[in-house]
Amino acid sequence: MSEYLSTEPYRGTRDFLPDEMSVRTQVFHRLYEVLERYGYQRYDGPQLEPVEIYESKSSQEIVNQQLYTLTDHGGRRLALRPEMTPSVARMIAGNAGSLTFPVRWYSHPNCHRYERPQRGRVREHWQINVDLFGSSSTAVEVEFLELIHDMMASLGASTDMWRLRVSDRVLLDALLTHIVGVPHDKVRETANLLDRWEKVSADTLAESATEIGLSEEQFARLAEVVKDGRAAIEELPVEVRNQSRLMQVLDTSAAELIEFDPLIVRGFDYYTSTVFEVFDTDPSNRRSLFGGGRYDNLVGLFSNKEIPGFGFGMGDVTIIDFLDTHGLLPRPRTDVDVVVIPTAEQLFDPARRAARVLRDAGLRVTTPLDTRKLGKEIQRADKAGARAVVIVGPDDWVSELVTVRDLASGEQHQTTLHALDSSVRAIIPSE
Amino acid sequence: MSEYLSTEPYRGTRDFLPDEMSVRTQVFHRLYEVLERYGYQRYDGPQLEPVEIYESKSSQEIVNQQLYTLTDHGGRRLALRPEMTPSVARMIAGNAGSLTFPVRWYSHPNCHRYERPQRGRVREHWQINVDLFGSSSTAVEVEFLELIHDMMASLGASTDMWRLRVSDRVLLDALLTHIVGVPHDKVRETANLLDRWEKVSADTLAESATEIGLSEEQFARLAEVVKDGRAAIEELPVEVRNQSRLMQVLDTSAAELIEFDPLIVRGFDYYTSTVFEVFDTDPSNRRSLFGGGRYDNLVGLFSNKEIPGFGFGMGDVTIIDFLDTHGLLPRPRTDVDVVVIPTAEQLFDPARRAARVLRDAGLRVTTPLDTRKLGKEIQRADKAGARAVVIVGPDDWVSELVTVRDLASGEQHQTTLHALDSSVRAIIPSE
Repeated sequence: MSEYLSTEPYRGTRDFLPDEMSVRTQVFHRLYEVLERYGYQRYDGPQLEPVEIYESKSSQEIVNQQLYTLTDHGGRRLALRPEMTPSVARMIAGNAGSLTFPVRWYSHPNCHRYERPQRGRVREHWQINVDLFGSSSTAVEVEFLELIHDMMASLGASTDMWRLRVSDRVLLDALLTHIVGVPHDKVRETANLLDRWEKVSADTLAESATEIGLSEEQFARLAEVVKDGRAAIEELPVEVRNQSRLMQVLDTSAAELIEFDPLIVRGFDYYTSTVFEVFDTDPSNRRSLFGGGRYDNLVGLFSNKEIPGFGFGMGDVTIIDFLDTHGLLPRPRTDVDVVVIPTAEQLFDPARRAARVLRDAGLRVTTPLDTRKLGKEIQRADKAGARAVVIVGPDDWVSELVTVRDLASGEQHQTTLHALDSSVRAIIPSE
Repeated sequence: MSEYLSTEPYRGTRDFLPDEMSVRTQVFHRLYEVLERYGYQRYDGPQLEPVEIYESKSSQEIVNQQLYTLTDHGGRRLALRPEMTPSVARMIAGNAGSLTFPVRWYSHPNCHRYERPQRGRVREHWQINVDLFGSSSTAVEVEFLELIHDMMASLGASTDMWRLRVSDRVLLDALLTHIVGVPHDKVRETANLLDRWEKVSADTLAESATEIGLSEEQFARLAEVVKDGRAAIEELPVEVRNQSRLMQVLDTSAAELIEFDPLIVRGFDYYTSTVFEVFDTDPSNRRSLFGGGRYDNLVGLFSNKEIPGFGFGMGDVTIIDFLDTHGLLPRPRTDVDVVVIPTAEQLFDPARRAARVLRDAGLRVTTPLDTRKLGKEIQRADKAGARAVVIVGPDDWVSELVTVRDLASGEQHQTTLHALDSSVRAIIPSE
């Protein structure tokens, strides 16, 4: 056994070295910008939450198998949050008296789930969470559709790269009872069957349908609904159809962004009406990228107030995979702009002065910590991505001059500290 | 007992509502900017780490009393990181082959310690971590002093608001053995005594000194060293004094930023040479704001490579308290810029078009989700911090016009969607 500790991160978690971190930061920064333009305000909450807030409303799979739990020295049972929605519902309930609704909030927490690591699935991921509280209007659904469109556009994704599949639990309920003839007490099991529809074989589906108690004819009708949901909707009585929020959304200009798909169910027990998922259209990678929906009763865990909510979470793993698939990943921005090189140890102080001038002008500047040969130092600067070096040499410095060198052209000239900023900006223009 | 779950966050942790989050974000964003200008690159690592990486080098207080630990389903013992330094040392060791040293890295993790919550002390805090690996030059110390100065300046803190107290474990060792006459095997206990010097009474100190085995005369000499460290240094033989990195730093222009203070010891066992802490000078609040130092052997836990490191961590609680004390907290930026108000439900689509125009121009824009009276909607816009509203009314809209209203002056005028951006920018100039 090695005498050294492992340098690997804990299984299913990731180290983000600067290049990867720069990509992650740029991607999420673009999303932040879109969210802020829609008036969403960033919040944050604790990593550790009382385990009870997940037990009643998160999916049983999460609670029983995926939750990281611990007991603190005071005997409190805590969980590392597996998702953000229960936390934000807790905060909304606790601050409802001082908030002006509707409330538009977003956050960017890390969440933990104990899963078997595989492509697109890790144990710790970073997730943008977006929620709107306090309105039952279908204008909320429309706002989210536009918001998602703009978030995807900000990442460079055109509308042919993704599609937004939407359902409505109210509408699904109506389809299952009216069109398929599923008894009310079997609706939930049948919805779970739809959730697995694309993941298991036709035989398995038929078997499960029989177990639920559906006849062959009912199963065939269910398959029809799956195949053409829009046609199935048309068969519903108008007054039933109009109870669905989704039908109203389909009447607005946002309708072109979405398609109705009864297979969109989503596992979380707390969704009550509209649910959606965004899928990659790349044939090699037809995964769900992210999703969410309306959860009108979640705040009710914490107070007697009824505050409807709508929200979604978008995780870093799937979205960065998606951008990679479509060639949309931003280039890492880890280069320095300028290296200021003193040619002797007694010139370290002047070199720091020159570096300060350039930093004050907003440039990313380093100075060597040890003295090496100038040629070697210039090579290192080039490798670090610098586009200019400033050389502080003894002969120049007696006249308070330094030499600016353009690393691309090799051209160089002398300048004063006073003119250093504009000399360097001639090589590296402001963005 | 209430039928509802508590809305309080877990004891010692915090909810950050948008106003608080905005302050935190602005403060740390300024620090990021300074760090990037010094060529530091952001990285990130997992929240959960194998517990072993803390057991050998973090302080015993942390490991025995403050660590949140759990065992996963695979039997692995994990800890919520109480600090970032062991994680970054692990990453550096694991990637040493592909990195070009010196490496300048920073991160902004949340860290957990099980402590009794009190002013300035919480169980989960957010901490900027800054580290430089791969140089033993005292130019590293100088760079950090300048960096800290610029980080504090970026927050609006002038140099009279804080002071940087520095020591050097090598120098302290020399002072204790040469000047006070402490035997080598008692140096560590005596250093721990210095660490508690300002926290306990003179009698307690004297008692502890006796327990360590110091004579009354030695204790008196120790008090002299504490009182005037610079004078004590002068008494050291030159060749001993020159072994200290700090002595070289005191010869540079950065010396004016610091004072030598033998009381700066810092609890972490991994520091090997220079150590420092930054203190608030406000008499009501003379706390340590943050600190760090040189830890030359930490990477050695993970590999046979010797990679010296220097770093510090700055936590959100103390730094935001400091800014509050000195009236330097940034104003929360949670206002929207514009609210676009449709006066009837059939105008929601045009209102969204108008909102899109303004969002594309970089403005933060919301649209109401329900129809209310116009006066009420304008009041709400004003309360949300908007400086302009755009009213989409049926009579205007038949000619594709909207009305822009300056909420401060009450003046309003009609405009087209095409000219909307410049109309609004006349009220809200770009930053």
